[in-house]
Amino acid sequence: MITGKNYIGDERIAKGNKTYKTFNPKENKETPYSFYEATEDEINQAVELASEAFQTYKNVSGAKKADFLNAIAEEIEALGDLLIETYVAESGLPEGRAKGERGRTMGQLRAFASLLQEGSWVEATIDTAQPKREPLPKPDIRKMLFPIGPVVVFGASNFPLAFSTAGGDTASALAAGCPVIVKSHPMHAGTGELVAEAIIKAAKKTGMPNGVFSNLNSSGIEVGQQLVKHPTVKAVGFTGSIKGGTALSKLAQERKEPIPVYAEMGSINPVVILPSALKEHSSHWAQQYAASITLGAGQFCTNPGLLLAVKSDALNGFITQLGKEISQIAPTAMLHPNICDTYQKNMELASAQDKTKLVGAYEGQASPNFGKQKVLTVNGQEFLKNTLLHQEVFGPYSLVVQCENDEELKHILEALEGQLTGTVLGNKDELKNKSALIDALKERVGRLILNSVPTGVEVCPSMHHGGPFPATTDAKYTSVGVAAIKRWVRPVAYQNWPVELLPQALQNTNPLKVMRLVNGEYSNKPI
Amino acid sequence: MITGKNYIGDERIAKGNKTYKTFNPKENKETPYSFYEATEDEINQAVELASEAFQTYKNVSGAKKADFLNAIAEEIEALGDLLIETYVAESGLPEGRAKGERGRTMGQLRAFASLLQEGSWVEATIDTAQPKREPLPKPDIRKMLFPIGPVVVFGASNFPLAFSTAGGDTASALAAGCPVIVKSHPMHAGTGELVAEAIIKAAKKTGMPNGVFSNLNSSGIEVGQQLVKHPTVKAVGFTGSIKGGTALSKLAQERKEPIPVYAEMGSINPVVILPSALKEHSSHWAQQYAASITLGAGQFCTNPGLLLAVKSDALNGFITQLGKEISQIAPTAMLHPNICDTYQKNMELASAQDKTKLVGAYEGQASPNFGKQKVLTVNGQEFLKNTLLHQEVFGPYSLVVQCENDEELKHILEALEGQLTGTVLGNKDELKNKSALIDALKERVGRLILNSVPTGVEVCPSMHHGGPFPATTDAKYTSVGVAAIKRWVRPVAYQNWPVELLPQALQNTNPLKVMRLVNGEYSNKPI
Repeated sequence: MITGKNYIGDERIAKGNKTYKTFNPKENKETPYSFYEATEDEINQAVELASEAFQTYKNVSGAKKADFLNAIAEEIEALGDLLIETYVAESGLPEGRAKGERGRTMGQLRAFASLLQEGSWVEATIDTAQPKREPLPKPDIRKMLFPIGPVVVFGASNFPLAFSTAGGDTASALAAGCPVIVKSHPMHAGTGELVAEAIIKAAKKTGMPNGVFSNLNSSGIEVGQQLVKHPTVKAVGFTGSIKGGTALSKLAQERKEPIPVYAEMGSINPVVILPSALKEHSSHWAQQYAASITLGAGQFCTNPGLLLAVKSDALNGFITQLGKEISQIAPTAMLHPNICDTYQKNMELASAQDKTKLVGAYEGQASPNFGKQKVLTVNGQEFLKNTLLHQEVFGPYSLVVQCENDEELKHILEALEGQLTGTVLGNKDELKNKSALIDALKERVGRLILNSVPTGVEVCPSMHHGGPFPATTDAKYTSVGVAAIKRWVRPVAYQNWPVELLPQALQNTNPLKVMRLVNGEYSNKPI
Repeated sequence: MITGKNYIGDERIAKGNKTYKTFNPKENKETPYSFYEATEDEINQAVELASEAFQTYKNVSGAKKADFLNAIAEEIEALGDLLIETYVAESGLPEGRAKGERGRTMGQLRAFASLLQEGSWVEATIDTAQPKREPLPKPDIRKMLFPIGPVVVFGASNFPLAFSTAGGDTASALAAGCPVIVKSHPMHAGTGELVAEAIIKAAKKTGMPNGVFSNLNSSGIEVGQQLVKHPTVKAVGFTGSIKGGTALSKLAQERKEPIPVYAEMGSINPVVILPSALKEHSSHWAQQYAASITLGAGQFCTNPGLLLAVKSDALNGFITQLGKEISQIAPTAMLHPNICDTYQKNMELASAQDKTKLVGAYEGQASPNFGKQKVLTVNGQEFLKNTLLHQEVFGPYSLVVQCENDEELKHILEALEGQLTGTVLGNKDELKNKSALIDALKERVGRLILNSVPTGVEVCPSMHHGGPFPATTDAKYTSVGVAAIKRWVRPVAYQNWPVELLPQALQNTNPLKVMRLVNGEYSNKPI
């Protein structure tokens, strides 16, 4: 049920009088729902409740937290058509995408549940005592990872489910043992409230402490700012713009106790097209990339916004065909009029840059809020000079850079800011010959992809969805896949502690049968 | 040989004309050596050389990097008496400590060498392809940790060897595959130059690229600032004051590309004394703590600066005896007149605080630069009110807080800033009964110690020498033990990459026999 209220723990509360509505971009009209902006009191209440809940929740076993996460997945499924309809209305995205994203969100929750059931993620490390060591006895030291406290999660505009209320940030923080306060994304607050309801139901069913989850509505920046400044909040997860992420990060650094903001921000996901790909598979890649650039109206963080290749006749052919493909794809609705307006503005700004030329665009009429795709081209020298062209244009846009030679291409890769992904199209022999290019690309990205498109992010332990700044604020961490849990924990070492009073993962008998590093050797056996 | 010059890679260079001298605090006179402050050009040259070296060094095998680290240990040993004499002259610390710290430094280098030889530290994670998965095929994804680039290390005043030129920060960064530029500590620049010479010799002997290590002299803050701001520097290691660490961290955040500063800063290392310890072992702990408070003139980051207990007759007895023990210990030289002056000032400021009372102090005459120890006491209520008393007094000082009851003690623990360590003195049964106190302590610290003193930090995989802010800037990381390597790396995932072009740790045959997470299972077998 969508009431427009905030969830402060298991209570729906709306003390404020400022309201806002969500918008159906496809139908170009407001949705019927009104949402109550969280008040300062409500924010404090949510954080204090989270802090209390943490005292219990941090000691809940992995098995029980797994039950909670699995129950969230079930409750999300139980929301049925209402969730899908609300998602579609508030995002303009098609039903198939809504269902796919729901499946992914449930899959993520279940992946974290499995991680907890297996248990080795705590990185238990044990060095046993050597009382007779000379010149000094060696103490018994045992460390593992522990949750850090209440976490604030900012939902993303472009993934109303998988990167929002019960998305990867929330799932990973809850898995770690941290209560979560979600700052709901204003563009899909109804979807958010439904998912929040599912989480609250699951928390009750599985006996989690009240306050383990809260959901606060907000259409501006104040609620988020207050949350990040609250002394009891210990970390922040954010997916969004470079401007938003760096502002929150700065705010968090200015606190008396600075806290980490794990922000996934902009990326143009460079694609290096090697000669063999242009010669042998030009048509295939032109089709694939026209589809990838326009997928979901280009509203993916892994959208290929930069295609790089050395000038050749084959490149000319590729550009011609890419232009043709691009012009023929029917535009789709963007997430919100504001996003469509910003896209239009940034795309026009890029088009107005010196020496850029049109590769292809959708030239027909389109409904309001539909993103009309455009691909430009420019030469390498100009691209190097004009860093505006290095910036992300969020939407169905890309830029083909025509380089003089490999050296110029390498300079361009070195001049790029940090990126989530880098893709290479080419055959194996070329990879060997172009190792300097590939190495330069690797230094700028978190994931190197061969002969594919960057859109589509597999959820698995080996995934790294992160990259050097400004792709993320901390290149060490991923926001996709189970390794995302490592953002919300810190190690604590116990020295000479009675073994029976240690957490199970550190006890001699290893009752959870987790993999541990014991006196320098990996083992899941008892000591 | 001490020349006073900077090491820019393997060249000794001194282009500047600003010089400074080191000081022998025990003899209260300057040492014979003059050091040339690094110029702006020299700084840039060192960073650029490091950046070039990185192109080669990042691909050097673990086995070869291990040879390099082991060779550094050998070359440090080969410096013989000159190193020990210089250390003693520049620090005022006794010969035994110098030799012990040399042993520890060599041990750290060798521990990282072993870590590299074993190889599993790269956290290789592999998910193999499922080409027939529905609705979409699953790609092959493989990730591991890679070095991030040139690292700047700031030597610590209080550990001229183990936390300086070839200390844990340098050893861990070199082990990770990152070139290191050391900003030499001005108080022991001669010791630093000797160790730098050892590193350079080892680099040449084992064929490491020139620029893998540089050592820059500096008596002020400008050299360090310029290093942290240099766009090619990718991370910073620092051990020192809260003021210094937070200033560098702020500078690093203001860069176009912010970089992490791993700073280990202040800590007062609270010790909770439970009734059984006071009743049964009062005299033992009074002796142990008098020794720990004054060890190395109190100049350890794990110095016990805060003893907490509930009021009782037994506590009174403990305080009386601690005072007696403290007054009888002969003071020793502090590291530098500046450090001794600051100690004196901060100790007097604490003594002047309302309601503090003297427990014990060395009241006799002492040589110049010798730190005269002092222990104060105050009641819990006053301590809670006056946060000046929560601040570290770097030197042989401690404060006994007399609490009304467990509740007040718990409030005090909750009010403390983050700490490196927390210690509990008491018997097992008490630990069970006092779980709320211990839990509150755990939330503020990186290491929990039972029935010991916090001074003495074991170098082993399970050690965590880090803690919530301001103990460190990032509570996730340790600066002691092999886990310190994790600060200088980031994951990169390869998607659909030809297996033979992957790093060895990710290849199917697992030629390095490292422990990997393959399709969700830990294994050191081939795929």
